Amino acid sequence: MDTLALRNYARPAEWDGAPLVDTDVHLNLDSLSTLFPYLELRWRDYIVESGMGGLASDLYPANVPNLYLEGSRPEKGPAGSNLDLLRSQLLDPWKLQYAVLNCTYGVDSVHNDDLAAALARAINRWQLEEWLQQDSRLRGSAVLPLQNPHMAAAEVEWASQFSEFVQVTVPSRSREPLGRRGFWPIYRAAQAAGLVVGIQAGGISGNPLTPVGWPTYFIEDYVDVPLAFQAQLLSLVAEGVFVEFPELKVATIEGGFAWLPPLMWRFDKDWKGLRREVPWVSRPPSEVIRDHVRMTIQPLDDPETPEFLVDVIDQLLCDEMLMFSTDYPHAHFDEPVESMPRGLSAELQSKIMAGNALATYRFK
Amino acid sequence: MDTLALRNYARPAEWDGAPLVDTDVHLNLDSLSTLFPYLELRWRDYIVESGMGGLASDLYPANVPNLYLEGSRPEKGPAGSNLDLLRSQLLDPWKLQYAVLNCTYGVDSVHNDDLAAALARAINRWQLEEWLQQDSRLRGSAVLPLQNPHMAAAEVEWASQFSEFVQVTVPSRSREPLGRRGFWPIYRAAQAAGLVVGIQAGGISGNPLTPVGWPTYFIEDYVDVPLAFQAQLLSLVAEGVFVEFPELKVATIEGGFAWLPPLMWRFDKDWKGLRREVPWVSRPPSEVIRDHVRMTIQPLDDPETPEFLVDVIDQLLCDEMLMFSTDYPHAHFDEPVESMPRGLSAELQSKIMAGNALATYRFK
Repeated sequence: MDTLALRNYARPAEWDGAPLVDTDVHLNLDSLSTLFPYLELRWRDYIVESGMGGLASDLYPANVPNLYLEGSRPEKGPAGSNLDLLRSQLLDPWKLQYAVLNCTYGVDSVHNDDLAAALARAINRWQLEEWLQQDSRLRGSAVLPLQNPHMAAAEVEWASQFSEFVQVTVPSRSREPLGRRGFWPIYRAAQAAGLVVGIQAGGISGNPLTPVGWPTYFIEDYVDVPLAFQAQLLSLVAEGVFVEFPELKVATIEGGFAWLPPLMWRFDKDWKGLRREVPWVSRPPSEVIRDHVRMTIQPLDDPETPEFLVDVIDQLLCDEMLMFSTDYPHAHFDEPVESMPRGLSAELQSKIMAGNALATYRFK
Repeated sequence: MDTLALRNYARPAEWDGAPLVDTDVHLNLDSLSTLFPYLELRWRDYIVESGMGGLASDLYPANVPNLYLEGSRPEKGPAGSNLDLLRSQLLDPWKLQYAVLNCTYGVDSVHNDDLAAALARAINRWQLEEWLQQDSRLRGSAVLPLQNPHMAAAEVEWASQFSEFVQVTVPSRSREPLGRRGFWPIYRAAQAAGLVVGIQAGGISGNPLTPVGWPTYFIEDYVDVPLAFQAQLLSLVAEGVFVEFPELKVATIEGGFAWLPPLMWRFDKDWKGLRREVPWVSRPPSEVIRDHVRMTIQPLDDPETPEFLVDVIDQLLCDEMLMFSTDYPHAHFDEPVESMPRGLSAELQSKIMAGNALATYRFK
């Protein structure tokens, strides 16, 4: 989490010549007015007249000095809001084949379904026209109005028309567990279009951040991030999402992965005793997870002993799950070579760098 | 989770001669009327007149065939409610030096502080007179009325008078994170008395069971159990409980442990960037956890590949944390030898079997 001097922020020399896909790059809005060209007059008026200031969340406290890479804030607007900077700081020096953009602007904090849908559509059109269509290396994640699964499914269908979109995203901290049947129209539409459902760390659900209520400190909020992901994977598998949608792929974004092997062990063991309750889960949950879940690697939950992370990756029993990410413009590593777990085989490193993402997303 | 034939339920022959302490043995109430001799007339009347049926929770669905060991239900009352059965099924055949009893009767589900305190005291007196003082191998965990930390602290002080009590227990699914300052009178009293604070899996807090709301299935509830423990350890460390109470020991009971190494990695890494927020946490959180947290081992989150669990135990970087438990009368393993992780050094196995518990609890 130390501040990075950008002169060092580039693809490590050791990786030269190898394909590299960054599966988590952030796109930020300068302000709500950025979306005005993409909003109907009705909603522009609504935003102006209500004095709505913006939907940027404080999930990451914005002024923490080591939150963003040094030099990643443009003269005007937040880090991640300037295409030229994105090119000069990430796409070019890291020699990316593709970068998958994510926009975490807080559409999920809106209680009005119609407004949420209008904002999501505006963000997606803005993303398409001002980012994705401006650089052939960029691919997008369509934001969904999860408040209303039918409107969200319609947005998936809209996004599916554009090859620039490869994913749709929902927040990890959702109002209900994501496996619940009410969400299934989203998954039906995503499967039909070959779009990945990305679960992005964050969200403003109204639920306490932990099963034991609200924590006191930001460090608890931040270290607790994997809890919601654990509950989401349980829900998706237990409800039978991947039985109903056997081609669906889910990507966890910024959720870590070191917690997954113990969760799979526990889930498999308990499934043996309790499977009668979920008879559609007809094979061990770990197999379902390995077939359907992909995970971006940053932030890495690095142990002081790097071999321990290699042990964890071995315990996944699957080389297809992890996908390289920088989480640009967030700062997660001191030296670029530390962006990858150390000590992996060349074959596995190559899969993480690009192969797994190329097999997961509908890049064309 | 398979049903066990009790003829096989005994200390494995390989362990003969070695001290063995079981740190998680369950005590159940036949019915609320069991407590009547230990309740004031006022509360007996209250219970009878209100038609209060009992506080046994349905955390474990009681009639699931593989929940309890075969033969562990006495003719009258639930499994775990009969001392003779406990002796003949556990204490004798496992040749236990000590067994630490836990009673999970749902005192935490009561909204009336005075009633909760009266019930906790009644359970503790019943436990003392009818169990702990009847067999020298038994030690007790005093139940606390966590609804009111000052009443709870008074109960800790009461229990501290009796060497039969070695622990006080609170539920993992509490109404607030257990680090919060309002709970500190409990920790002050526990430290003063040398009593361990046991966090027992379960609880009826009213909070949704996950950070994303209520799950649908019992299998989610059960596999999600470690989530609350993860949030609790974060809270205890972040709030500075172990700075204020440097002699305090906390035991997680039935919470698993395989999730701990990744949590410590994430916590240590994020602490480096965010420690200014919690300046009293003056050393890596993993060190604090290793010094103060102990964990009962059942249910083991067994992987199919036993070596993976040995990897996890290595990753704890501490041989003092794990404590043998059977979780009697719950059924967690097919063969007794499977109650311990396989492939450990003799020295570590001996610490888990008894040494760590003997160093943690005030056995005398």
